[in-house]
Amino acid sequence: MRHGAFGNATALACRECGHQVALGPHYACPECFGPLEIAYDFPAVTRAEIEAGPRNIWRYKALLPVPSDIEESPNMEPGFTRLLKAHNLGATLGIDNLWVKDDSTNPTNSFKDRVVACALSAAREFGSTVFACPSTGNLANAVAAAGARAGIKTVVFIPSDLEQPKQVNSAVYTDSLVAVNGNYDDVNRLASEIAGEEEGWAFVNVNVRPYYAEGSKTLGYEIAEQLGWRLPDQIVIPVASGSQLTKVHKAFQELISLGLVEDKPYKVYGAQATGCSPVSVAYKAGVDAIRPVKPATIAKSLAIGNPADGVYVLDICRETGGSVEDITDEEVRAAIVLLARTEGIFTETAGGTTVGVLKKLVESGALDPTLETVVINTGHGLKTLDAVAGSVGPAATIDPSYAAFTRTEIV
Amino acid sequence: MRHGAFGNATALACRECGHQVALGPHYACPECFGPLEIAYDFPAVTRAEIEAGPRNIWRYKALLPVPSDIEESPNMEPGFTRLLKAHNLGATLGIDNLWVKDDSTNPTNSFKDRVVACALSAAREFGSTVFACPSTGNLANAVAAAGARAGIKTVVFIPSDLEQPKQVNSAVYTDSLVAVNGNYDDVNRLASEIAGEEEGWAFVNVNVRPYYAEGSKTLGYEIAEQLGWRLPDQIVIPVASGSQLTKVHKAFQELISLGLVEDKPYKVYGAQATGCSPVSVAYKAGVDAIRPVKPATIAKSLAIGNPADGVYVLDICRETGGSVEDITDEEVRAAIVLLARTEGIFTETAGGTTVGVLKKLVESGALDPTLETVVINTGHGLKTLDAVAGSVGPAATIDPSYAAFTRTEIV
Repeated sequence: MRHGAFGNATALACRECGHQVALGPHYACPECFGPLEIAYDFPAVTRAEIEAGPRNIWRYKALLPVPSDIEESPNMEPGFTRLLKAHNLGATLGIDNLWVKDDSTNPTNSFKDRVVACALSAAREFGSTVFACPSTGNLANAVAAAGARAGIKTVVFIPSDLEQPKQVNSAVYTDSLVAVNGNYDDVNRLASEIAGEEEGWAFVNVNVRPYYAEGSKTLGYEIAEQLGWRLPDQIVIPVASGSQLTKVHKAFQELISLGLVEDKPYKVYGAQATGCSPVSVAYKAGVDAIRPVKPATIAKSLAIGNPADGVYVLDICRETGGSVEDITDEEVRAAIVLLARTEGIFTETAGGTTVGVLKKLVESGALDPTLETVVINTGHGLKTLDAVAGSVGPAATIDPSYAAFTRTEIV
Repeated sequence: MRHGAFGNATALACRECGHQVALGPHYACPECFGPLEIAYDFPAVTRAEIEAGPRNIWRYKALLPVPSDIEESPNMEPGFTRLLKAHNLGATLGIDNLWVKDDSTNPTNSFKDRVVACALSAAREFGSTVFACPSTGNLANAVAAAGARAGIKTVVFIPSDLEQPKQVNSAVYTDSLVAVNGNYDDVNRLASEIAGEEEGWAFVNVNVRPYYAEGSKTLGYEIAEQLGWRLPDQIVIPVASGSQLTKVHKAFQELISLGLVEDKPYKVYGAQATGCSPVSVAYKAGVDAIRPVKPATIAKSLAIGNPADGVYVLDICRETGGSVEDITDEEVRAAIVLLARTEGIFTETAGGTTVGVLKKLVESGALDPTLETVVINTGHGLKTLDAVAGSVGPAATIDPSYAAFTRTEIV
């Protein structure tokens, strides 16, 4: 490893017991098996330094476990996606001041480009020879694309019954797509086994997960910077493993500690689909333990039945005065169409879940419609086209004549 | 119309005879029926003024037919997409200094968001009540999305036999998608008829076409700014109607006139698919007239058999010392995979055509591999997934065990 290979990161620290180990391709605490997180010793960082940086996540490199020359290495240059004022959606839902953070415009059209870019940097610094992941969708696309651009051997494992469009969307980037006869859990288990047996493999969401997960912090940094270095009052975030929500909260806390934004209260809300809502169920039951479920929802990118960071999500939502809510697949579909028709943003099922939960939170009174609110759109609807294929279509079919047109009641 | 509704634009001028008419929803010269273009009286414009602007096409508003408060009106905020250094693709093709201008990361994943944003501004200033287009793909997505965000009634006309995924990708944004029993030419004719008969309809690519087309200039402005206010030596651009190529050239000329970049020679190359290559055929035959063809290619977004700006493309490519070239559908498919596996960019068939033509130009010696070269990627591969579905897939299918994995020869 080069000197400064991980920037201002100093160690891996256990989230449960605080035990620290040296930076390396590790993810579980040797003392208590708790999850390892990156610990830092941040220098003074100014807004001006960040604003002078590149228009991607590397503007925040001082706050990530990456070297100071990170932007010189070929990478996908993700991030600094749009924060759009959602006038129409806000008016429809009765929210005065609503923003959509739109990560569907990332290079491979989901927020996964952020985390994969950080994992790639770690893999490079560890001298890994293979960049890999188990995945069913967005992560596979992001890993295969980033590996191609970085010129590192990339192997992506998917369930063999994955829909062909999703296979194509990964296979186009890599000649090493491996289909596994089994479900996602089987693929995941195989990945952990390979990570344990093989030298030099960096599985982004297994053995380099602590580095990978830090990438989600950039969503929080960007929202604050794009609001004019200010935290929103309320934020709604989808919950799969729960990592993204915890990292956005971590980002906000870091910005406060560093004096980059004013300290103020903000509420964090988690969004799940009812068909895979173990965190929402625990929240509503008022308990601390998450009971794993077998997912059954169209929001497949959120379908993690045993979310690793679920308990931390509960803590954050409760501490900040937010909540966790879930909606049905029918509500997910309706929310996808609602966002498209109000703001011209076509979101995937995960984004539909988040927008739909926002709607439900306003209706139930759990979210204050007079406060500044941000909702995160994590990915693009082109990846989950089937979800709405039955819901939308032509309003009329006519013969190619003006007379036929005038008989429609389109306008 | 408000005072300053069209910024520094002063009139519509005929590209053929120079006759000028007042700014309005017109597209054909009343004297000779030639195409009308926007004429301007530009003030002094500085790099600093542009750099202080928003990170989208409106940073160039002084050079577009839009009001000075354009960014206040709800719009998709397209543009300022990535200009990526293509190390790997360059090395593969033997080009020393290659860049990809990646418009697949625009809001609806194609360059059409640029032109539609300018058309929308014109429609707003004309007081149009309906925003419309005939289209089979990218344009339909861009119009439907922009209309939704702007809160203007939007009607999109498509051939009724269009593939369902493409229908869904437009219908998600609008409840006024109209399927027409006929081919694209029939749909187009119907659109022109409606534009002539109905009051208040702005058809982006018909009666507000002069405003719409100016949006493509922003591709040229951005490339120059992102290169550090410098023109490239060579640029390869896809040719459908030919409008984009002529507008990028116009943008470069304007930047030179305004003193924003140094005057220097550059070569412009046009890219077509062999199955619809009327401009390439004319170029190679050394003639000035374009003979219309019946398109038969997988590059459907380039499949315009009678390109309106074809003759201007010939002029520009000849004058600058570039050329026009075409490649087969098989070469288009191979180029899509080549770009994905070298740079992590998944392009649509139009981009495959452009990259494939770049490869052919290097191989034939028509393009100098030692000069700085830019290739434009106009849209996203998720929109034309079928094009490569037969070409890529899993390298292996295995049982979910480490033993099975070790028997593969993936690494």
